[in-house]
Amino acid sequence: MWTLLHYPLCPASRAVRLALNEAGIEAGLTEVKPWGITREFLDVNPAGTLPVLLVEAKAVCGIYPIVEYLAETVVREGPVAARSGYWPGNPLERAEARRVAEWFLRKFDAEVSQYLLEEKLYKPLSRRGAPDLDAIRAGRSHLRYHLSYVSFLSEHRKWLGGDHPGFADLAAAAQFSALDYLGEIPWNDFPEAKAWYGRLKSRPSFRPLLMDRVPGINPPDSYANLDF
Amino acid sequence: MWTLLHYPLCPASRAVRLALNEAGIEAGLTEVKPWGITREFLDVNPAGTLPVLLVEAKAVCGIYPIVEYLAETVVREGPVAARSGYWPGNPLERAEARRVAEWFLRKFDAEVSQYLLEEKLYKPLSRRGAPDLDAIRAGRSHLRYHLSYVSFLSEHRKWLGGDHPGFADLAAAAQFSALDYLGEIPWNDFPEAKAWYGRLKSRPSFRPLLMDRVPGINPPDSYANLDF
Repeated sequence: MWTLLHYPLCPASRAVRLALNEAGIEAGLTEVKPWGITREFLDVNPAGTLPVLLVEAKAVCGIYPIVEYLAETVVREGPVAARSGYWPGNPLERAEARRVAEWFLRKFDAEVSQYLLEEKLYKPLSRRGAPDLDAIRAGRSHLRYHLSYVSFLSEHRKWLGGDHPGFADLAAAAQFSALDYLGEIPWNDFPEAKAWYGRLKSRPSFRPLLMDRVPGINPPDSYANLDF
Repeated sequence: MWTLLHYPLCPASRAVRLALNEAGIEAGLTEVKPWGITREFLDVNPAGTLPVLLVEAKAVCGIYPIVEYLAETVVREGPVAARSGYWPGNPLERAEARRVAEWFLRKFDAEVSQYLLEEKLYKPLSRRGAPDLDAIRAGRSHLRYHLSYVSFLSEHRKWLGGDHPGFADLAAAAQFSALDYLGEIPWNDFPEAKAWYGRLKSRPSFRPLLMDRVPGINPPDSYANLDF
């Protein structure tokens, strides 16, 4: 049995949970608070980042090593056929899907999620003072640019990484879903992005994420509603 | 013929050049200045980052998509057998090598290279004012921590990613080599790291990088000297 060290609203952790669920792999979940990294955790992952997948008493650290490990080893086929499904297509199509995954895991994360999760979630939960309203405004402004990019991609291809669903969609949906929990996504201003997210959200792999609850911070009703 | 859009002292560009050289692949090189990204370049890579590998009129954008593309497609064998050589070993060993590559491509880059390259290279070349001495001090302080980590890894394994040379070594050496051009690496304080870098530096794949020259900024004599 594998164990995932994760935090429920950490976008990279969510991307791995979706990838595991799509492949029909059950893994134990152990919660680690991103604002309370311990020396024991650093012994496992010296970079101090989530997620970490524990496999045969070895640690696979970080979103990129984990998804490539899964792509290399998972043979079971879930709703997405995992082996080819994470990165479908020929090598050039796979490269484009990896570019899009990278976009959301790195660029979106740095420009949107790090601002909004830090100010609206991690700061209050760890009692580190009042939110920085300028940071929240910056995150929200960048978010609209990224929603436009999702709409742009959705007009040119069936899924974000190409014509088949894959890890690029899971990576992007993981980011949006964490912010959707905080009521931050103006879905109605971006109908193409909303339609794409609706298709992801209704997949069985998404259901456990929609049941997550962080103590003291409730999501809006629309968060878990498939007709949002 | 492939073309790499790169900048000579951009660490991620250097990592790809080393990976191509190790596989014996000749690619054309087109210089793009990281501080002067144009609208035409954004049409190729909307993220505005280097490197980009042009293959069959398609763009493979970013270090992570490029190296996985090469790992999937390169069959020729150079000094490092490329197909298995970028990520040698079994899937768990490959995951560990990817963790180390990620460490240098992301963490080292954010904590060391971005400070020192920005202040000592990109700012003067683009005439954007005087260097920020606090930023230089921060980069140098973090650099010593990362050199200690290289020494630590070198004491426990033959190469940084495991017992065989691979892309993790190329990624790390690419970072150090760019800063070595600026005379920033205190090699003599870190003998294990120096021994590891010496083994990389003497590989034929490294030779073209040691011949790079940026107009107006000369490297110290030790930069290209194999007995440094």
